[in-house]
Amino acid sequence: MTVDVFAEPADTREEILAATYRSLREYGYADLTIKKIGTELERSPSLIYHHYEDKDALVLACLEYLLEYFEGELDDESIDDPPARLEEILEWWLATDPDDEWMGFVTAMVELRAQAVHDSAYREHFVRSDHLFGESIAAVIRAGIETGDFHKCDPDAVAETVQTTILGTVLRRSSTDGDEWLDAVRDEVQYYFRARVYDSGDD
Amino acid sequence: MTVDVFAEPADTREEILAATYRSLREYGYADLTIKKIGTELERSPSLIYHHYEDKDALVLACLEYLLEYFEGELDDESIDDPPARLEEILEWWLATDPDDEWMGFVTAMVELRAQAVHDSAYREHFVRSDHLFGESIAAVIRAGIETGDFHKCDPDAVAETVQTTILGTVLRRSSTDGDEWLDAVRDEVQYYFRARVYDSGDD
Repeated sequence: MTVDVFAEPADTREEILAATYRSLREYGYADLTIKKIGTELERSPSLIYHHYEDKDALVLACLEYLLEYFEGELDDESIDDPPARLEEILEWWLATDPDDEWMGFVTAMVELRAQAVHDSAYREHFVRSDHLFGESIAAVIRAGIETGDFHKCDPDAVAETVQTTILGTVLRRSSTDGDEWLDAVRDEVQYYFRARVYDSGDD
Repeated sequence: MTVDVFAEPADTREEILAATYRSLREYGYADLTIKKIGTELERSPSLIYHHYEDKDALVLACLEYLLEYFEGELDDESIDDPPARLEEILEWWLATDPDDEWMGFVTAMVELRAQAVHDSAYREHFVRSDHLFGESIAAVIRAGIETGDFHKCDPDAVAETVQTTILGTVLRRSSTDGDEWLDAVRDEVQYYFRARVYDSGDD
Protein backbone atom coordinates (compact mmCIF):
# COMPACT_ATOMS: atom_id res chain seq x y z
CA MET A 1 0.00 0.00 0.00
CA THR A 2 1.62 3.25 -1.13
CA VAL A 3 0.46 6.77 -1.93
CA ASP A 4 1.79 6.64 -5.51
CA VAL A 5 -1.74 6.89 -6.89
CA PHE A 6 -0.75 9.95 -8.96
CA ALA A 7 2.55 8.52 -10.24
CA GLU A 8 1.42 8.17 -13.87
CA PRO A 9 -1.43 10.54 -14.77
CA ALA A 10 -3.33 9.24 -17.82
CA ASP A 11 -4.83 12.52 -19.07
CA THR A 12 -5.10 16.26 -18.40
CA ARG A 13 -7.68 15.76 -15.67
CA GLU A 14 -5.42 13.35 -13.79
CA GLU A 15 -2.45 15.69 -14.33
CA ILE A 16 -4.43 18.51 -12.74
CA LEU A 17 -5.45 16.32 -9.80
CA ALA A 18 -1.86 15.12 -9.35
CA ALA A 19 -0.63 18.73 -9.28
CA THR A 20 -3.40 19.60 -6.79
CA TYR A 21 -2.32 16.77 -4.50
CA ARG A 22 1.38 17.75 -4.66
CA SER A 23 0.54 21.44 -4.06
CA LEU A 24 -1.74 20.57 -1.15
CA ARG A 25 1.07 18.62 0.50
CA GLU A 26 3.58 21.40 -0.14
CA TYR A 27 1.57 24.49 0.84
CA GLY A 28 -1.23 23.19 3.01
CA TYR A 29 -4.93 23.87 2.39
CA ALA A 30 -5.01 27.50 3.58
CA ASP A 31 -2.17 28.62 1.30
CA LEU A 32 -3.25 26.53 -1.68
CA THR A 33 -4.27 28.57 -4.72
CA ILE A 34 -5.20 27.71 -8.31
CA LYS A 35 -2.20 29.81 -9.34
CA LYS A 36 0.20 27.63 -7.32
CA ILE A 37 -1.38 24.49 -8.75
CA GLY A 38 -0.88 25.98 -12.23
CA THR A 39 2.81 26.59 -11.47
CA GLU A 40 3.16 23.00 -10.20
CA LEU A 41 1.46 21.80 -13.38
CA GLU A 42 3.55 24.13 -15.61
CA ARG A 43 0.30 25.25 -17.24
CA SER A 44 -1.83 28.38 -17.07
CA PRO A 45 -4.43 28.63 -14.29
CA SER A 46 -7.07 29.14 -16.99
CA LEU A 47 -6.63 25.51 -18.05
CA ILE A 48 -7.55 24.50 -14.50
CA TYR A 49 -10.55 26.88 -14.40
CA HIS A 50 -11.70 25.28 -17.64
CA HIS A 51 -12.12 21.98 -15.72
CA TYR A 52 -12.87 23.08 -12.14
CA GLU A 53 -14.85 25.98 -10.74
CA ASP A 54 -12.73 26.77 -7.68
CA LYS A 55 -10.19 25.46 -5.20
CA ASP A 56 -12.67 23.36 -3.25
CA ALA A 57 -14.11 21.74 -6.39
CA LEU A 58 -10.56 20.77 -7.27
CA VAL A 59 -9.60 19.48 -3.83
CA LEU A 60 -12.84 17.50 -3.55
CA ALA A 61 -12.25 15.97 -7.00
CA CYS A 62 -8.75 15.06 -5.84
CA LEU A 63 -10.16 13.37 -2.69
CA GLU A 64 -12.74 11.55 -4.81
CA TYR A 65 -10.02 10.28 -7.11
CA LEU A 66 -7.94 9.04 -4.16
CA LEU A 67 -10.96 7.31 -2.67
CA GLU A 68 -11.83 5.56 -5.95
CA TYR A 69 -8.23 4.46 -6.29
CA PHE A 70 -8.20 2.92 -2.81
CA GLU A 71 -11.60 1.31 -3.42
CA GLY A 72 -10.11 -0.38 -6.49
CA GLU A 73 -7.03 -1.47 -4.56
CA LEU A 74 -9.16 -3.00 -1.80
CA ASP A 75 -11.38 -4.81 -4.32
CA ASP A 76 -8.35 -6.47 -5.87
CA GLU A 77 -7.05 -7.58 -2.51
CA SER A 78 -7.50 -11.11 -1.27
CA ILE A 79 -6.88 -11.73 2.40
CA ASP A 80 -4.76 -14.89 2.41
CA ASP A 81 -3.26 -14.49 5.85
CA PRO A 82 -5.54 -12.42 8.13
CA PRO A 83 -3.11 -12.12 11.10
CA ALA A 84 -0.32 -10.92 8.79
CA ARG A 85 -2.74 -8.49 7.11
CA LEU A 86 -3.81 -7.05 10.46
CA GLU A 87 -0.17 -6.59 11.47
CA GLU A 88 0.48 -4.91 8.13
CA ILE A 89 -2.34 -2.39 8.76
CA LEU A 90 -0.86 -1.52 12.16
CA GLU A 91 2.64 -1.28 10.73
CA TRP A 92 1.42 0.98 7.93
CA TRP A 93 -0.45 3.39 10.19
CA LEU A 94 1.60 3.28 13.38
CA ALA A 95 5.14 3.17 11.94
CA THR A 96 7.56 5.36 13.89
CA ASP A 97 9.67 6.15 10.82
CA PRO A 98 7.19 7.11 8.13
CA ASP A 99 8.61 8.52 4.91
CA ASP A 100 7.90 12.10 3.83
CA GLU A 101 5.45 11.01 1.15
CA TRP A 102 3.32 9.21 3.73
CA MET A 103 3.47 12.02 6.31
CA GLY A 104 2.53 14.48 3.56
CA PHE A 105 -0.53 12.39 2.82
CA VAL A 106 -1.75 12.08 6.42
CA THR A 107 -1.15 15.72 7.35
CA ALA A 108 -3.03 16.80 4.20
CA MET A 109 -5.95 14.61 5.29
CA VAL A 110 -5.97 16.24 8.75
CA GLU A 111 -6.12 19.68 7.15
CA LEU A 112 -9.01 18.62 4.93
CA ARG A 113 -10.86 17.07 7.87
CA ALA A 114 -10.66 20.47 9.52
CA GLN A 115 -12.45 21.88 6.44
CA ALA A 116 -15.16 19.27 7.04
CA VAL A 117 -16.03 20.99 10.35
CA HIS A 118 -17.79 23.75 8.40
CA ASP A 119 -18.23 22.29 4.90
CA SER A 120 -20.73 19.50 4.29
CA ALA A 121 -19.14 18.46 0.96
CA TYR A 122 -15.96 17.55 2.86
CA ARG A 123 -18.02 15.86 5.59
CA GLU A 124 -19.74 13.68 3.00
CA HIS A 125 -16.38 12.64 1.66
CA PHE A 126 -15.02 11.63 5.06
CA VAL A 127 -18.20 9.72 5.95
CA ARG A 128 -17.58 7.65 2.80
CA SER A 129 -13.84 7.23 3.29
CA ASP A 130 -14.26 6.28 6.98
CA HIS A 131 -16.83 3.71 5.95
CA LEU A 132 -14.45 2.27 3.36
CA PHE A 133 -11.54 2.21 5.81
CA GLY A 134 -13.64 0.61 8.59
CA GLU A 135 -14.99 -2.00 6.19
CA SER A 136 -11.49 -2.90 5.02
CA ILE A 137 -10.38 -3.60 8.62
CA ALA A 138 -13.60 -5.47 9.47
CA ALA A 139 -13.11 -7.66 6.37
CA VAL A 140 -9.69 -8.76 7.66
CA ILE A 141 -11.12 -9.64 11.08
CA ARG A 142 -14.07 -11.45 9.52
CA ALA A 143 -11.66 -13.43 7.32
CA GLY A 144 -9.56 -14.33 10.39
CA ILE A 145 -12.61 -15.59 12.28
CA GLU A 146 -13.50 -17.77 9.28
CA THR A 147 -9.99 -19.25 9.03
CA GLY A 148 -10.03 -19.84 12.78
CA ASP A 149 -7.01 -17.56 13.31
CA PHE A 150 -9.10 -15.07 15.29
CA HIS A 151 -11.26 -15.32 18.33
CA LYS A 152 -14.99 -14.82 17.84
CA CYS A 153 -15.59 -11.08 18.32
CA ASP A 154 -17.61 -8.29 16.73
CA PRO A 155 -15.54 -7.46 13.61
CA ASP A 156 -17.26 -4.09 13.10
CA ALA A 157 -16.79 -2.97 16.70
CA VAL A 158 -13.10 -3.92 16.67
CA ALA A 159 -12.65 -2.25 13.28
CA GLU A 160 -14.31 1.01 14.44
CA THR A 161 -12.03 1.06 17.47
CA VAL A 162 -8.82 0.38 15.56
CA GLN A 163 -9.79 2.93 12.93
CA THR A 164 -10.53 5.54 15.61
CA THR A 165 -7.22 4.92 17.37
CA ILE A 166 -5.41 5.15 14.02
CA LEU A 167 -7.15 8.49 13.31
CA GLY A 168 -6.02 9.67 16.75
CA THR A 169 -2.39 8.83 15.88
CA VAL A 170 -2.80 10.67 12.58
CA LEU A 171 -4.12 13.77 14.37
CA ARG A 172 -1.41 13.69 17.08
CA ARG A 173 1.53 13.18 14.75
CA SER A 174 0.26 15.90 12.39
CA SER A 175 -0.22 18.47 15.15
CA THR A 176 2.65 17.80 17.58
CA ASP A 177 6.40 17.16 17.48
CA GLY A 178 7.91 13.83 18.44
CA ASP A 179 6.27 10.42 18.36
CA GLU A 180 7.74 8.83 21.49
CA TRP A 181 4.16 8.01 22.56
CA LEU A 182 3.59 5.91 19.44
CA ASP A 183 5.44 2.77 20.60
CA ALA A 184 3.24 2.64 23.70
CA VAL A 185 0.08 2.97 21.60
CA ARG A 186 1.21 0.19 19.24
CA ASP A 187 2.06 -2.09 22.19
CA GLU A 188 -1.32 -1.46 23.79
CA VAL A 189 -3.23 -2.07 20.55
CA GLN A 190 -1.32 -5.35 20.27
CA TYR A 191 -2.34 -6.15 23.85
CA TYR A 192 -5.97 -5.42 22.95
CA PHE A 193 -5.68 -7.64 19.85
CA ARG A 194 -4.23 -10.50 21.93
CA ALA A 195 -7.11 -10.24 24.39
CA ARG A 196 -9.88 -9.52 21.89
CA VAL A 197 -8.91 -10.90 18.51
CA TYR A 198 -6.04 -13.40 18.67
CA ASP A 199 -7.02 -15.15 21.86
CA SER A 200 -8.70 -18.48 21.28
CA GLY A 201 -10.36 -18.69 24.74
CA ASP A 202 -14.07 -18.51 25.48
CA ASP A 203 -16.17 -15.50 24.55
CA MET B 1 -15.63 19.36 34.06
CA THR B 2 -17.22 21.96 31.77
CA VAL B 3 -16.00 24.47 29.19
CA ASP B 4 -17.34 27.46 31.10
CA VAL B 5 -13.82 28.81 31.58
CA PHE B 6 -14.81 32.13 30.00
CA ALA B 7 -18.11 32.51 31.85
CA GLU B 8 -17.01 35.43 34.01
CA PRO B 9 -14.17 37.43 32.45
CA ALA B 10 -12.27 39.40 35.12
CA ASP B 11 -10.76 42.15 32.93
CA THR B 12 -10.49 43.49 29.37
CA ARG B 13 -7.90 40.88 28.41
CA GLU B 14 -10.17 38.04 29.54
CA GLU B 15 -13.14 39.69 27.80
CA ILE B 16 -11.14 39.75 24.56
CA LEU B 17 -10.12 36.10 24.94
CA ALA B 18 -13.71 35.10 25.74
CA ALA B 19 -14.94 36.89 22.60
CA THR B 20 -12.18 35.19 20.59
CA TYR B 21 -13.24 31.79 21.86
CA ARG B 22 -16.93 32.43 21.10
CA SER B 23 -16.11 33.78 17.61
CA LEU B 24 -13.82 30.84 16.88
CA ARG B 25 -16.63 28.44 17.71
CA GLU B 26 -19.13 30.40 15.65
CA TYR B 27 -17.14 31.14 12.48
CA GLY B 28 -14.33 28.59 12.49
CA TYR B 29 -10.64 29.47 12.22
CA ALA B 30 -10.55 30.29 8.50
CA ASP B 31 -13.38 32.84 8.69
CA LEU B 32 -12.30 34.32 12.02
CA THR B 33 -11.30 37.99 11.81
CA ILE B 34 -10.36 40.64 14.37
CA LYS B 35 -13.36 42.59 13.11
CA LYS B 36 -15.76 39.75 13.94
CA ILE B 37 -14.19 39.37 17.38
CA GLY B 38 -14.69 43.13 17.87
CA THR B 39 -18.38 42.79 16.96
CA GLU B 40 -18.74 39.86 19.39
CA LEU B 41 -17.03 41.98 22.05
CA GLU B 42 -19.12 45.07 21.20
CA ARG B 43 -15.88 47.06 21.07
CA SER B 44 -13.73 48.52 18.30
CA PRO B 45 -11.13 46.23 16.66
CA SER B 46 -8.50 48.84 17.62
CA LEU B 47 -8.95 47.88 21.27
CA ILE B 48 -8.01 44.32 20.32
CA TYR B 49 -5.03 45.45 18.24
CA HIS B 50 -3.86 47.41 21.27
CA HIS B 51 -3.46 44.08 23.11
CA TYR B 52 -2.71 41.58 20.33
CA GLU B 53 -0.72 41.85 17.11
CA ASP B 54 -2.84 39.61 14.87
CA LYS B 55 -5.38 36.81 14.74
CA ASP B 56 -2.89 34.05 15.55
CA ALA B 57 -1.46 35.93 18.56
CA LEU B 58 -5.01 36.20 19.83
CA VAL B 59 -5.97 32.57 19.19
CA LEU B 60 -2.72 31.33 20.76
CA ALA B 61 -3.32 33.53 23.83
CA CYS B 62 -6.81 32.06 24.02
CA LEU B 63 -5.41 28.50 23.86
CA GLU B 64 -2.81 29.40 26.50
CA TYR B 65 -5.55 30.72 28.77
CA LEU B 66 -7.62 27.55 28.34
CA LEU B 67 -4.58 25.40 29.08
CA GLU B 68 -3.71 27.32 32.25
CA TYR B 69 -7.31 27.06 33.38
CA PHE B 70 -7.34 23.27 32.93
CA GLU B 71 -3.93 22.99 34.62
CA GLY B 72 -5.41 24.78 37.63
CA GLU B 73 -8.50 22.56 37.60
CA LEU B 74 -6.37 19.40 37.51
CA ASP B 75 -4.12 20.65 40.34
CA ASP B 76 -7.14 21.15 42.57
CA GLU B 77 -8.49 17.71 41.81
CA SER B 78 -8.04 14.83 44.22
CA ILE B 79 -8.65 11.34 42.86
CA ASP B 80 -10.78 9.71 45.58
CA ASP B 81 -12.28 6.96 43.47
CA PRO B 82 -10.01 6.04 40.52
CA PRO B 83 -12.44 3.64 38.76
CA ALA B 84 -15.23 6.23 38.91
CA ARG B 85 -12.81 8.90 37.68
CA LEU B 86 -11.72 6.77 34.72
CA GLU B 87 -15.38 6.13 33.79
CA GLU B 88 -16.02 9.86 34.07
CA ILE B 89 -13.22 10.61 31.58
CA LEU B 90 -14.68 8.11 29.09
CA GLU B 91 -18.18 9.49 29.62
CA TRP B 92 -16.97 13.03 29.09
CA TRP B 93 -15.10 12.32 25.87
CA LEU B 94 -17.14 9.51 24.34
CA ALA B 95 -20.68 10.69 25.16
CA THR B 96 -23.11 10.13 22.29
CA ASP B 97 -25.23 13.17 23.19
CA PRO B 98 -22.73 15.99 23.73
CA ASP B 99 -24.15 19.48 24.17
CA ASP B 100 -23.45 22.22 21.63
CA GLU B 101 -21.00 23.97 23.93
CA TRP B 102 -18.87 20.84 24.17
CA MET B 103 -19.02 20.05 20.43
CA GLY B 104 -18.10 23.67 19.71
CA PHE B 105 -15.03 23.25 21.89
CA VAL B 106 -13.80 19.99 20.33
CA THR B 107 -14.41 21.05 16.73
CA ALA B 108 -12.53 24.32 17.39
CA MET B 109 -9.62 22.26 18.72
CA VAL B 110 -9.60 20.12 15.55
CA GLU B 111 -9.47 23.24 13.41
CA LEU B 112 -6.55 24.61 15.45
CA ARG B 113 -4.71 21.30 15.29
CA ALA B 114 -4.91 21.61 11.51
CA GLN B 115 -3.11 24.98 11.88
CA ALA B 116 -0.40 23.12 13.82
CA VAL B 117 0.47 21.16 10.68
CA HIS B 118 2.22 24.23 9.26
CA ASP B 119 2.67 26.51 12.31
CA SER B 120 5.17 25.62 15.02
CA ALA B 121 3.58 27.95 17.61
CA TYR B 122 0.40 25.85 17.44
CA ARG B 123 2.47 22.65 17.49
CA GLU B 124 4.19 23.76 20.70
CA HIS B 125 0.83 24.39 22.26
CA PHE B 126 -0.54 20.93 21.40
CA VAL B 127 2.66 19.20 22.60
CA ARG B 128 2.02 20.85 25.99
CA SER B 129 -1.71 20.22 26.09
CA ASP B 130 -1.30 16.56 25.02
CA HIS B 131 1.28 16.14 27.76
CA LEU B 132 -1.09 17.63 30.33
CA PHE B 133 -4.00 15.49 29.14
CA GLY B 134 -1.92 12.29 29.09
CA GLU B 135 -0.56 13.01 32.57
CA SER B 136 -4.05 13.57 33.94
CA ILE B 137 -5.17 10.12 32.70
CA ALA B 138 -1.94 8.43 33.88
CA ALA B 139 -2.43 9.97 37.35
CA VAL B 140 -5.84 8.32 37.63
CA ILE B 141 -4.42 4.93 36.63
CA ARG B 142 -1.47 5.33 39.00
CA ALA B 143 -3.88 6.22 41.83
CA GLY B 144 -5.98 3.14 41.04
CA ILE B 145 -2.93 0.86 41.14
CA GLU B 146 -2.05 2.33 44.54
CA THR B 147 -5.54 1.79 45.97
CA GLY B 148 -5.53 -1.75 44.56
CA ASP B 149 -8.53 -1.03 42.31
CA PHE B 150 -6.44 -1.46 39.18
CA HIS B 151 -4.29 -4.23 37.84
CA LYS B 152 -0.56 -3.52 37.66
CA CYS B 153 0.04 -2.03 34.19
CA ASP B 154 2.07 0.75 32.59
CA PRO B 155 -0.02 3.85 33.46
CA ASP B 156 1.71 6.01 30.84
CA ALA B 157 1.25 3.49 28.04
CA VAL B 158 -2.44 3.02 28.87
CA ALA B 159 -2.90 6.79 29.16
CA GLU B 160 -1.24 7.46 25.77
CA THR B 161 -3.51 4.89 24.17
CA VAL B 162 -6.73 6.17 25.73
CA GLN B 163 -5.76 9.74 24.87
CA THR B 164 -5.02 8.77 21.26
CA THR B 165 -8.33 6.94 20.89
CA ILE B 166 -10.14 9.94 22.40
CA LEU B 167 -8.41 12.24 19.89
CA GLY B 168 -9.52 9.89 17.14
CA THR B 169 -13.15 10.20 18.28
CA VAL B 170 -12.75 13.99 18.38
CA LEU B 171 -11.43 14.02 14.80
CA ARG B 172 -14.12 11.65 13.51
CA ARG B 173 -17.07 13.40 15.12
CA SER B 174 -15.81 16.81 13.99
CA SER B 175 -15.34 15.74 10.38
CA THR B 176 -18.20 13.31 9.71
CA ASP B 177 -21.95 13.07 10.31
CA GLY B 178 -23.46 10.55 12.70
CA ASP B 179 -21.81 8.88 15.64
CA GLU B 180 -23.28 5.38 15.42
CA TRP B 181 -19.71 4.03 15.59
CA LEU B 182 -19.14 5.65 18.99
CA ASP B 183 -20.98 3.06 21.10
CA ALA B 184 -18.79 0.34 19.63
CA VAL B 185 -15.64 2.30 20.43
CA ARG B 186 -16.76 2.91 24.01
CA ASP B 187 -17.61 -0.78 24.48
CA GLU B 188 -14.24 -1.85 23.11
CA VAL B 189 -12.32 0.65 25.29
CA GLN B 190 -14.23 -0.80 28.26
CA TYR B 191 -13.21 -4.28 27.11
CA TYR B 192 -9.59 -3.14 26.96
CA PHE B 193 -9.88 -1.61 30.44
CA ARG B 194 -11.33 -4.83 31.84
CA ALA B 195 -8.44 -6.83 30.37
CA ARG B 196 -5.68 -4.32 31.03
CA VAL B 197 -6.63 -2.09 33.94
CA TYR B 198 -9.49 -3.50 36.02
CA ASP B 199 -8.51 -7.14 35.93
CA SER B 200 -6.83 -8.33 39.11
CA GLY B 201 -5.14 -11.37 37.55
CA ASP B 202 -1.39 -11.92 37.14
CA ASP B 203 0.77 -9.67 35.02
